[in-house]
Amino acid sequence: MESISEDTIAQLDGWWRAANYLSVGQIYLLDNPLLRTPLTRDNVKPRLLGHWGTTPGLNFLYAHLNRAIKAREQPTIYVTGPGHGGPGLVANAYLDGTYTETYPDITQDVEGLRRLFRQFSFPGGIPSHVAPETPGSIHEGGELGYALSHAYGAAFDNPDLLVVAVVGDGEAETGALATSWHSNKFLNTTNDGVVLPILHLNGYKIANPTVLARIPEDELRSLMVGLGHQPYFFEVPDDGSTDHADAHRRFAALLDDVLDRITEIKANAAAGDEERPAWPMIVFRTPKGWTGPATIDGKKTTGSWRAHQVPLASARDTPEHLQVLAQWLASYRAEELFDADGKLDPHIAALAPPGQLRMSDNPHTNGGLLLKDLRLPDFRAFGVDVPAPGATVAEATRVLGQWLTEVIRLNPDNFRIFGPDETASNRLQSVFEVTDKQWEAEFVGPEVDEHLARAGRVIEMLSEHQCQGWLEGYLLTGRHGLFNCYEAFIHIIDSMFNQHAKWLKVTNHIPWRRPIASLNYLLSSHVWRQDHNGFSHQDPGFIDHVVNKRAEVVRVYLPPDANTLLSTYDHCLRSRQYVNVVVAGKQPHPNFLTMEEAIAHCTRGLGIWEWAGNEKVGRDPDVVIAAAGDVPTLEALAAVDLLRQHLPELRVRFVNVVDLMRLQDATEHPHGLSNRDFDMIFTPDKPVIFAYHGYPWLIHRLTYRRSNDSRIHVRGYKEEGTTTTPFDMVMLNDLDRYHLVIDVIDRVPQLQSRCATLRQRMVDKRLAAREYTRAYGDDIPEVRDWVWPDARGAQGGGPVDAVAATGGDNE
Amino acid sequence: MESISEDTIAQLDGWWRAANYLSVGQIYLLDNPLLRTPLTRDNVKPRLLGHWGTTPGLNFLYAHLNRAIKAREQPTIYVTGPGHGGPGLVANAYLDGTYTETYPDITQDVEGLRRLFRQFSFPGGIPSHVAPETPGSIHEGGELGYALSHAYGAAFDNPDLLVVAVVGDGEAETGALATSWHSNKFLNTTNDGVVLPILHLNGYKIANPTVLARIPEDELRSLMVGLGHQPYFFEVPDDGSTDHADAHRRFAALLDDVLDRITEIKANAAAGDEERPAWPMIVFRTPKGWTGPATIDGKKTTGSWRAHQVPLASARDTPEHLQVLAQWLASYRAEELFDADGKLDPHIAALAPPGQLRMSDNPHTNGGLLLKDLRLPDFRAFGVDVPAPGATVAEATRVLGQWLTEVIRLNPDNFRIFGPDETASNRLQSVFEVTDKQWEAEFVGPEVDEHLARAGRVIEMLSEHQCQGWLEGYLLTGRHGLFNCYEAFIHIIDSMFNQHAKWLKVTNHIPWRRPIASLNYLLSSHVWRQDHNGFSHQDPGFIDHVVNKRAEVVRVYLPPDANTLLSTYDHCLRSRQYVNVVVAGKQPHPNFLTMEEAIAHCTRGLGIWEWAGNEKVGRDPDVVIAAAGDVPTLEALAAVDLLRQHLPELRVRFVNVVDLMRLQDATEHPHGLSNRDFDMIFTPDKPVIFAYHGYPWLIHRLTYRRSNDSRIHVRGYKEEGTTTTPFDMVMLNDLDRYHLVIDVIDRVPQLQSRCATLRQRMVDKRLAAREYTRAYGDDIPEVRDWVWPDARGAQGGGPVDAVAATGGDNE
Repeated sequence: MESISEDTIAQLDGWWRAANYLSVGQIYLLDNPLLRTPLTRDNVKPRLLGHWGTTPGLNFLYAHLNRAIKAREQPTIYVTGPGHGGPGLVANAYLDGTYTETYPDITQDVEGLRRLFRQFSFPGGIPSHVAPETPGSIHEGGELGYALSHAYGAAFDNPDLLVVAVVGDGEAETGALATSWHSNKFLNTTNDGVVLPILHLNGYKIANPTVLARIPEDELRSLMVGLGHQPYFFEVPDDGSTDHADAHRRFAALLDDVLDRITEIKANAAAGDEERPAWPMIVFRTPKGWTGPATIDGKKTTGSWRAHQVPLASARDTPEHLQVLAQWLASYRAEELFDADGKLDPHIAALAPPGQLRMSDNPHTNGGLLLKDLRLPDFRAFGVDVPAPGATVAEATRVLGQWLTEVIRLNPDNFRIFGPDETASNRLQSVFEVTDKQWEAEFVGPEVDEHLARAGRVIEMLSEHQCQGWLEGYLLTGRHGLFNCYEAFIHIIDSMFNQHAKWLKVTNHIPWRRPIASLNYLLSSHVWRQDHNGFSHQDPGFIDHVVNKRAEVVRVYLPPDANTLLSTYDHCLRSRQYVNVVVAGKQPHPNFLTMEEAIAHCTRGLGIWEWAGNEKVGRDPDVVIAAAGDVPTLEALAAVDLLRQHLPELRVRFVNVVDLMRLQDATEHPHGLSNRDFDMIFTPDKPVIFAYHGYPWLIHRLTYRRSNDSRIHVRGYKEEGTTTTPFDMVMLNDLDRYHLVIDVIDRVPQLQSRCATLRQRMVDKRLAAREYTRAYGDDIPEVRDWVWPDARGAQGGGPVDAVAATGGDNE
Repeated sequence: MESISEDTIAQLDGWWRAANYLSVGQIYLLDNPLLRTPLTRDNVKPRLLGHWGTTPGLNFLYAHLNRAIKAREQPTIYVTGPGHGGPGLVANAYLDGTYTETYPDITQDVEGLRRLFRQFSFPGGIPSHVAPETPGSIHEGGELGYALSHAYGAAFDNPDLLVVAVVGDGEAETGALATSWHSNKFLNTTNDGVVLPILHLNGYKIANPTVLARIPEDELRSLMVGLGHQPYFFEVPDDGSTDHADAHRRFAALLDDVLDRITEIKANAAAGDEERPAWPMIVFRTPKGWTGPATIDGKKTTGSWRAHQVPLASARDTPEHLQVLAQWLASYRAEELFDADGKLDPHIAALAPPGQLRMSDNPHTNGGLLLKDLRLPDFRAFGVDVPAPGATVAEATRVLGQWLTEVIRLNPDNFRIFGPDETASNRLQSVFEVTDKQWEAEFVGPEVDEHLARAGRVIEMLSEHQCQGWLEGYLLTGRHGLFNCYEAFIHIIDSMFNQHAKWLKVTNHIPWRRPIASLNYLLSSHVWRQDHNGFSHQDPGFIDHVVNKRAEVVRVYLPPDANTLLSTYDHCLRSRQYVNVVVAGKQPHPNFLTMEEAIAHCTRGLGIWEWAGNEKVGRDPDVVIAAAGDVPTLEALAAVDLLRQHLPELRVRFVNVVDLMRLQDATEHPHGLSNRDFDMIFTPDKPVIFAYHGYPWLIHRLTYRRSNDSRIHVRGYKEEGTTTTPFDMVMLNDLDRYHLVIDVIDRVPQLQSRCATLRQRMVDKRLAAREYTRAYGDDIPEVRDWVWPDARGAQGGGPVDAVAATGGDNE
């Protein structure tokens, strides 16, 4: 690139001044947007809310990127790690016209400016962050740490896209961000786009310096080299200089060097160079609050943490602060930037690239615009054969994997599976028949590098944060995917889920935001089968966490077997704007429903399994045994089997719940059942013994205020566990078949007095099972070999071996 | 140090072989521990559970550290990042005698060996990880990522302690671990101990290579230098060699170099060198599953991910695998290591240092042994004056800060405050009158580096993971502290809380583990006052997350004002073995209780505020208005004020809840109320309108099955919010005073028909409040200026300005 002309420098500086002016205006001004009359107290907002410190840097970068994008016609999106720099991104979207196109009320004139300023952080207006309301944003930036993960997620399978990710030096201290630098070991040089990280080293957080701003430059350089980057350093000293031409000149040249280097890397890759390059990144060291007041009340402000939020907090209440604010605003010389009508000077406006090359208008940032339906193979063809309930055995996730294999084959460029090293452990390994794990670090040879390749639809890194962040970025830019994870460790991204659910909730109410594909979890290696790992790996509480978010965006499924898992997942991959949590086992487990039954069951979300109960037509049963989850379903069925043997006159209804949200009232969740339908299934008044996968309280919560809700008795995980056998685990938590029988005896009035012997027998069974297990290190054969009665007939001994298999691969 | 003798090499190798043998034995053998008869199928456990891959490396390091510790008399603890290497740590504790001292049943003979092997990952035995049951452990290592945070937490204020932290290369990919390398910018060279990170680069996870093992060594070196370390590289090639003398010789020399360098750094610091040193770290590259079978079933095993868990999964079922296992066990030549009785050869045993120098016996790893009570100043002296309820105003956390200031002054070496950059924002800044923020990175000068120093009791890094991990490490080694955090972002460490709560639960049942100080959270900047940040910063769900853990270890407090916060926190800092969650506001807020009243109220945990209600003595009220949390308490009192004005004949009882666990049944939680006591407070049958700080469901959960529980109506956060005014926030969630009045009208039978006018007036008030706010950007004066009636009398206009203050520092 040739050197930058003076005219371009002026244009860049004009844009930057305009963006800074609009940013300050948003934070402070209620009216008089162009200060056509002297600033008065009443022009200032009564509550000053927002963040100034990071904003001028963000604006500077945006201006320079505009120039480069226009010159190179390079589609680019801008991920704002320091999302509280919201006023800056709004300002730039306003300057390039996107904001007015999106919100026609915010016109390109004085009145539009007044509205733009007023609405910011104002009741009934827009949030202070780079929220869903901000055109061009895929990243709210409120909870710090995810800028790079989101950026790489956006870049996957977008070979022509440049994703500029500004990383705040505060954010850089978070765990999620610290490991996300390693994303460059997973980005394919040819098939994926480019991420350009810009470390915004403005030196301060709320009240502290930042770590990366306070280590020697050599150390920082080593760090970036060690993270696989070629760092480019840019620095503007905190010397109070108001002539920024030199900064513009230097940064424009540096940015050209960086983009040239990226072009070169892409060209090398196109020519066949498969080596992981040292991708450029920029260390952008500028004063915090750059161009703001140098000091306020005698204290250094610009270039310090004091510039972080709203300097001049009493601009409305002290004449001195008001005066400083007036001078500060005047320093941008708005009269040179906006004409009498309040319209941006056309020469400055011309800095912006045209149409969708504008970063705020890039369609990737409104992913639903680009979203295509997945081509989904008919899941019915992948079902398992179920001649009788329980007559065959499968590992549910392995069956799902076979269908996912075909999903991957049919959708080679817009579907990805992310996971922290567990895709095979979770039994999805058949996907490796058609794809590989994408890996750009070193290879050592096929002896150990199984299914590892430069390109592939599966990406695995031992960081739940990365899996979640990548998937979010991928979905937000209009693609599909899933995240498979150990159930307990999904809590690592509780807070990221919160933020994504909030994003979805808000976008549901923003008409121009088009629906995106749902975020699909597959939680396997669940609480009941942590044979190798024990207590630390047992936590089913993510479901509880999820249901605190708005019902309109969350769905929870607990398919009890392989065919129901297939049907559930087909539904999930077709859905939009949800978070779907699917919990499913990976261990050999009996199949209960044929594919047709499974589809019908999943369509209803919950239902009576007539073959399992023994009720009389037209009469309510004596007791309802309900189950949600694969292991609880098995124990509940075994309990029914015991009841049918020992108390044949007892009328038992068996209910299975796949879609947990069905338990809620219809007024609480769109999937909820009416009270009438609930009573049809659970009866209005009979005892319900509910065997549940997770913490029992959730079932009480979901069935709260159903008829006679105190009749619902729930067994589930009560935080008891260690490294032991599967049956010992359910016994430790009173979820076992024997205990469920005891619960029935204790809860059904007519049994309480006359079943003392049976009850004692169940107590003895439990003791004997525990003793056997502690003596032999395995579960009692009676449990291991148990099969549902229909299956006994179907195949003699039943699927004993498979059910009892413990395997060596339950990580 | 002089070079290592051949005899020492033999001793090291003997120890290592013994530890490896015991590790393999634990994973596989049920009996015949020293193979005095040929290995048979029946000697092999029926379920093979555990992890081999990381174990030989852990054992190698342990052996070498033994030698160095003994030679240098250096108190050392060992933090095992790859905690699934449990058999290794158990083996070493057995070899040095600690295990037998702790568990006398596991004797130093053949029978003891048999029991040692059998109990591992066995029902009724011990977990597979470096769990609380393992002597010498402060780190379970089940959920990866926290090894270095825990290690640094242990090192703070332990100037003579060396903490060796083995970081798995899988763990190194997690977010928490990635940022925890930066801990070295917070470790004081003189006052704190030393952390020696050893990156265990064995190359593989469950099914993948690791990132750090697959980047060029130069890049890894740059990374470690960039992270502030001086890396020492050690490598053992994966060449199948069985002669390990060279490896021992090289590593012993390297370890001496490293420890010499550490000694030198400490000496320099003692001589006054305050500069942050480049602390040594070791890159320990050895084959995964080192010394195990090179191949199994023709596939490369040692040196590959196939060695991660249990190689030879069918050792019991296939003669081939059994044969390989026999050869593998034989390769350690146990007959040279253990005598006929099964006792370890004394020369090998002599490698271990004596007594508490043994890493497994270091008292810092059983922190309760070293725990001293805090010297706590009388919090009563720090209370605020409350001449009448609501007559004065305070920022509760600022008041707490004044007491904490004295706590810090009185406990200069065993109490620390951790936080992610928010100690001042959360109004605890008075602590900086007596201490500073500890910071070992660069300083630029007093103009901006306020309260920053080489040593100080406050440590701030923008990583909730680090704050949590450091505090855990600090507590587990017998000290005290608290973590102050924004309420919403505490979810970032949900999973870490899980693990710590599980640790506490388990240690409660291990007699030799002495109680440690509770982990205290102070969650401020809570959901209702995110004025600057809006929706992304609003999440009160950590409380819900916490109550899923065992009642015996969790406590949740919502003090409604300054004096109750003081009383609550005094209690928390005295407690042991809990996680205390305290949520408290930092904004100006009326004080309701005198110190005496506050103490009485906190002692009860909940109670009737008689001054607020207007019930008749001896008669149940018509309605109970309850509140938990500062903002809900204010709105509920304002609602009572409205009711007393407009419906003076209505008998209202006001209940405030500080200790949320009091709401539970006594059978569910040790703090729970009996049903009788519950009914005394809430009446058995009157409507309860409950204004709650968080998600409403939790109150239903806690009061489930109380008398007529469907009469309890809860208002709380229902996931509605944005950047708006405080009153608009409560209105968005129907928690505002007007809505609470409407709720009373709708729920009290005698009011429903005759209060249509008042009800409509409340509806109109809400509309008017919203309109005013959207027009003026502020709350209506009627709300802003409201004070409790008693305060009106007490001081005329009441504390209007302070209540209405919005400030510029609510980050």
